[in-house]
Amino acid sequence: MSAFNRYRIFAVILMASVAFNAVAEDRFAGDRARWLAIAGHCKPALNVTEVSPVAVVEAQEDAAAFQGWKYVPVASPDSLCEMNFRQKCTVTLDFGRHITGHLVLRLKTLGDVMDAPVRLKFFFGETPGEMNVPLDPWRGSLSRAWMQDETVTLYASDRDIRLKRRVAFRYLRIELLGGNFDFALDGVRCEATTSAGECATALNEDCPQIIREINRVSLATLSECMQTVYEDGPKRDRRLWIGDLYLEALAGRYSYQNHLLTKRCLYLFAGLTDGNGRMMADLFEEPEPHPQWGTYCLTYSLLYPSVLLEYLKDTGDVTTAQDLWPVAKFQVEDALGRIREDNTCSASRAWLFFDHQVMDLEVPFQGAMLFALSQSCELAERIGHGNEVAEWRIMEAKIRKGAKARYYNRKSGLMESPDGSPVSVHSQIWAVIGGILSPKEGRRALEAVFSREDAVRANSPYAMHYLLEAMMQCGMGEQAKATMVDYWGGMVHKGADTFWEVYNPSDDLHSPYSFYPLNSYCHAWSCTPTYFIFKYPDIFQR
Amino acid sequence: MSAFNRYRIFAVILMASVAFNAVAEDRFAGDRARWLAIAGHCKPALNVTEVSPVAVVEAQEDAAAFQGWKYVPVASPDSLCEMNFRQKCTVTLDFGRHITGHLVLRLKTLGDVMDAPVRLKFFFGETPGEMNVPLDPWRGSLSRAWMQDETVTLYASDRDIRLKRRVAFRYLRIELLGGNFDFALDGVRCEATTSAGECATALNEDCPQIIREINRVSLATLSECMQTVYEDGPKRDRRLWIGDLYLEALAGRYSYQNHLLTKRCLYLFAGLTDGNGRMMADLFEEPEPHPQWGTYCLTYSLLYPSVLLEYLKDTGDVTTAQDLWPVAKFQVEDALGRIREDNTCSASRAWLFFDHQVMDLEVPFQGAMLFALSQSCELAERIGHGNEVAEWRIMEAKIRKGAKARYYNRKSGLMESPDGSPVSVHSQIWAVIGGILSPKEGRRALEAVFSREDAVRANSPYAMHYLLEAMMQCGMGEQAKATMVDYWGGMVHKGADTFWEVYNPSDDLHSPYSFYPLNSYCHAWSCTPTYFIFKYPDIFQR
Repeated sequence: MSAFNRYRIFAVILMASVAFNAVAEDRFAGDRARWLAIAGHCKPALNVTEVSPVAVVEAQEDAAAFQGWKYVPVASPDSLCEMNFRQKCTVTLDFGRHITGHLVLRLKTLGDVMDAPVRLKFFFGETPGEMNVPLDPWRGSLSRAWMQDETVTLYASDRDIRLKRRVAFRYLRIELLGGNFDFALDGVRCEATTSAGECATALNEDCPQIIREINRVSLATLSECMQTVYEDGPKRDRRLWIGDLYLEALAGRYSYQNHLLTKRCLYLFAGLTDGNGRMMADLFEEPEPHPQWGTYCLTYSLLYPSVLLEYLKDTGDVTTAQDLWPVAKFQVEDALGRIREDNTCSASRAWLFFDHQVMDLEVPFQGAMLFALSQSCELAERIGHGNEVAEWRIMEAKIRKGAKARYYNRKSGLMESPDGSPVSVHSQIWAVIGGILSPKEGRRALEAVFSREDAVRANSPYAMHYLLEAMMQCGMGEQAKATMVDYWGGMVHKGADTFWEVYNPSDDLHSPYSFYPLNSYCHAWSCTPTYFIFKYPDIFQR
Repeated sequence: MSAFNRYRIFAVILMASVAFNAVAEDRFAGDRARWLAIAGHCKPALNVTEVSPVAVVEAQEDAAAFQGWKYVPVASPDSLCEMNFRQKCTVTLDFGRHITGHLVLRLKTLGDVMDAPVRLKFFFGETPGEMNVPLDPWRGSLSRAWMQDETVTLYASDRDIRLKRRVAFRYLRIELLGGNFDFALDGVRCEATTSAGECATALNEDCPQIIREINRVSLATLSECMQTVYEDGPKRDRRLWIGDLYLEALAGRYSYQNHLLTKRCLYLFAGLTDGNGRMMADLFEEPEPHPQWGTYCLTYSLLYPSVLLEYLKDTGDVTTAQDLWPVAKFQVEDALGRIREDNTCSASRAWLFFDHQVMDLEVPFQGAMLFALSQSCELAERIGHGNEVAEWRIMEAKIRKGAKARYYNRKSGLMESPDGSPVSVHSQIWAVIGGILSPKEGRRALEAVFSREDAVRANSPYAMHYLLEAMMQCGMGEQAKATMVDYWGGMVHKGADTFWEVYNPSDDLHSPYSFYPLNSYCHAWSCTPTYFIFKYPDIFQR
């Protein structure tokens, strides 16, 4: 997740209140260093695989291709090491799959000694479109530096050169910007890294082909995002967000099962809470683990207990769950002050994220709050802390009732915002997940919202995940499957090697950042089809 | 030295003959590995000094300034670490002196966490003109990659970042190419390296100011070129050439006296001779020491015995001189086949370098050959190998006589080419150095050539060194001093921090490489004023 800028105004407001409250008491001061040390011990060694290009390719404009461009093979990659690059000047390579890692190559002299440095431009991209649209002058709303074009001066031939920048790509264009001697590009390859390991699951033999494809791409997406943390996207933002972590942990249960990586991420977030005990929405590993101060995102913090609960279910590791219970509990406790007299929750002065979408936030927030309460209670009860949350179970029931009274329109069958905001699918989804609507009511609401042309729809794989979740809870398995085939299958049909951060079936150039090359085309929050496929094999694998 | 391309045709011819002869016998096969091992043991540790910028500057066009540009200070360098570079976007720093080394800096966050990479362009230059002329489209005849502009993507703030490329510069412009958060450039500095150490000499107190300035710039030039070998220029070509080595060793005698570095260079050249025993004109250290095959430059190979002789004089290290005597001797012996029946030397099918100049090569070659014979004989006699070269002393006398008979015009008093090539200063210089002309005849020849408007003149500090040498041998001390003040002093007046590879007093944009930013503005072969200043203090220091 990374729609930070548009929410910055909320964040600034919250920063101020955080700073004010911080005077009071530093809740986890005694634990943070220990928690970070545990996170450090859990840091995985990365598996390194050498991946070589599969073809020399040429770009072709094609209105039928995703984003208007495709690559066609024109030569074997073996031709590279005999091609005089001083004359060739530019080449594009297709590595055949999405890779995260470091490029290695050598300049092979073809005759004379290398008597002057060589200046090469390497442009790495995830999609053909990204590779072929002019980047400058820059039109994106995020940093130009996210684009993976690197200009490098090389002084030595006939030895391996490893580019310093870690990149995420399938395609690589190399351009000669300076160099006066005959040489070839030799041994071009990528040291691909992941902490994913082997996949523990296999599809039924009679699983439909499109589901098979969706599962394959889901697994590739997750694997690429699994580095020394669960990253959101290996191209952008290359960092750990709570929202992505939750979905990656769910998908990981049915695939790579690297629960130690989940544990590391849980401890990193705990170790980087602020002086009040609040958790920022995302964090960085380098040079030392540190959070992105100012990104207190309430809907993300409220997911932390769910991540811990799922980890506990996967591992039975009660010790960790007990160790982190206070910090999980606090994320919910801290939000309880938002409960109003009518037993609904105030969404004011908070950064709430459900989707890359302009939408009403208050109604879906009721469901998010209820989901957090419910999951926290289950967690507490599983580890012998049920007595601490007995009151929360009562609150849950009250909020369900209050929210339904305030927002549910029995006539339309929809959760609606009293302030006149357009009705949204998100309000229905979270009303189901939060238990405000029964499965039957939920089904009616979802069907009603789908039929409304003016409704705000899901605009990201992140929101689509929760839609599938809600559908499954409402007994809409076939519709969920159809939705997956339509949405994720749509990306597959458009050539996705990994699933994307944003996907608008009717606009290939859609981007929340003004300029589509900034999109992350391998994004963790879109990897959950594998979770549904294996959790509900009777629906998805037949 | 680096005028490789224009001489490539000769080199190719020679390569062919080398390859043919190589079948015969590998003369130094048993010694090379040992010689390279000795060179390795002599590799110096570099002295590292941190150099900080002295001013934030702004470029101003100024017709009176060297190459039309100058920098004026506009702020203290301390202002950098408080300047929001996201808004500032570009800054130029003056480090106050020429530096060779690695840039270090950190991005200091000013508020938010760094939530996206930053893309910076660093442009390092030796002169204001080089910094301000557009480089692209590229007009130079050597590699564009010699220019020191580096684009770097940085992912981490608040920690030191060290650029990988070693650079040679005084000025640095930093431009923001991408980055969406508030930051300052902090701790910008250069880890400057040299193997020069302390200077062992000091000028007389009453030494004229201009000589003092020339000496200071000479020392800076030499010091900057002294790295793990004597480089020709730390910006370009960053490598060891025999011609530069000779002059650097001479200048080193009166300054840094790092004779171990000279020894290392002598052994490197010996260890990298070809299968015939011939020495290439230059060599590279990385990844493993290797020569630039194809650069057999006869006038440079013939200087090798001189370097060894000067080293012996400086150190008394007879063991090294004896160890390397066979390879030094062979460089001369191999050229003896060029002696014709009339006792002159053929210059055909050879790469001969005296200057960046289109000129007759045959006449100056007579002097170069004689100088090599004479120096080799002196070397042999000092180390007890005089009997091996007794014949050479006789040859010397014969060649002197033959060359004078063929090329000396007693009427004009000039050494002239019989093929009608324009008369050159180089022919007179080398006739003096080779002992063809007596000091009196030499003086007459030099004065005559200076008065000829059509004469080919010296066009580089390299050729100017030999001019001063010839003048000193002809008792023209005052003229030599005036020449030094005029030529090297001219560079000082134009703002040289270090002396240049090429200097044409009437054309600041002169370059042998089509485009002046390619010139090396810190070039070893221009460092010898310090040699003359201390060798002849009664002339130069009063």
